Amino acid sequence: MKKNMIVALAAMTLWTGANAQNPVKLPTAKQEGGMPLMEALHKRHSERTFSNKAISDATLSQVLWAACGINRKDEKRITAPSAMNKQDIVVYVCRKEGAWKYNAQQHSLEPVCKEDLRKYVAGRQEAVAEAPIMLVLCSDHTKFGEVGSSQYDIMGALDCGYVSQNIALACTSLGMNTVPRMTMDQDALRKALNLPSTTQLLINHPIGYPEK
Amino acid sequence: MKKNMIVALAAMTLWTGANAQNPVKLPTAKQEGGMPLMEALHKRHSERTFSNKAISDATLSQVLWAACGINRKDEKRITAPSAMNKQDIVVYVCRKEGAWKYNAQQHSLEPVCKEDLRKYVAGRQEAVAEAPIMLVLCSDHTKFGEVGSSQYDIMGALDCGYVSQNIALACTSLGMNTVPRMTMDQDALRKALNLPSTTQLLINHPIGYPEK
Repeated sequence: MKKNMIVALAAMTLWTGANAQNPVKLPTAKQEGGMPLMEALHKRHSERTFSNKAISDATLSQVLWAACGINRKDEKRITAPSAMNKQDIVVYVCRKEGAWKYNAQQHSLEPVCKEDLRKYVAGRQEAVAEAPIMLVLCSDHTKFGEVGSSQYDIMGALDCGYVSQNIALACTSLGMNTVPRMTMDQDALRKALNLPSTTQLLINHPIGYPEK
Repeated sequence: MKKNMIVALAAMTLWTGANAQNPVKLPTAKQEGGMPLMEALHKRHSERTFSNKAISDATLSQVLWAACGINRKDEKRITAPSAMNKQDIVVYVCRKEGAWKYNAQQHSLEPVCKEDLRKYVAGRQEAVAEAPIMLVLCSDHTKFGEVGSSQYDIMGALDCGYVSQNIALACTSLGMNTVPRMTMDQDALRKALNLPSTTQLLINHPIGYPEK
């Protein structure tokens, strides 16, 4: 069997395998290397066009780890700071085969639904719907304690900005386009992702390689 | 005259020179190099202890450029995304000699006052007061248009997160400690920095080298 075919089958197992109801472990992400920081900051920009070229599991793993993955295993702490270290930001991965919730502590994906939610993420801006992967960022206010403070909306948005910039810089380093967007069909996404009212739906990131 | 002395005098001019009422141009920041991105994300963490070792103008310039400096000169666009590209985040630099407002478009510092505001930034957490530089991050809601939408608080906080993560990663790359903090004496800072009610005072970043 050719190497390319084995890689393709391994990727298929992650998204369409027999255990699609179980969490899937992501490949280990690199915690070194990548584009020099100042160059990544120089090149970072928002881009709204994407080719439909597939994104490998290894690349998705790298983006998710950069976003809010564990960077100090002993302390279970992550790449992005958060208010009182509550790690309130939840990242959902939407692709053709369905939607998954990123579990940063396990570096795994938990299946949420088998529907292609990218049309809801694109909302009225259909041009971005070509992106093979869309990340949806929420803040789980129950992490902050008793829910109800108006301050939680501010804390959630602030914490979301950290994770979102990590995603933008990781995409830049990996040669991919992305843009943080507030536009999306909030009602449809809340229903499909089964988000309670204590979850603040904040932004999304279509991700893909540049068009040729 | 020894080279060290010339450097020291040049630094003094920036903070205490005869033209202290005029904007001071910052040294040009590097838009390449720095720590590899994934290593910076691996090493990023919040640190609340600082030596009182001075931070050079070149290093401060690099941190401010990384935060929200111009990365595409022709388009006047910056390293951090912002809602509708309104570039609403304003960064103040507080040090012993006074406080300055960062002008990203000019990459310069505009004098605000000659008082050492670091005690107000430290607030009740006196341990951080040793940091030679403290950055204060605000969102200028007038940039969004007519002021009054409750959504502006969310947009301002989100935009602040992007800039704050850039600061944290730049400090990591430059071998310095920092931590994003919401604690500060808001009333005293608003008065000293002359912030109108349309400016949302969000977080601060003490910055300094690690203690030996």
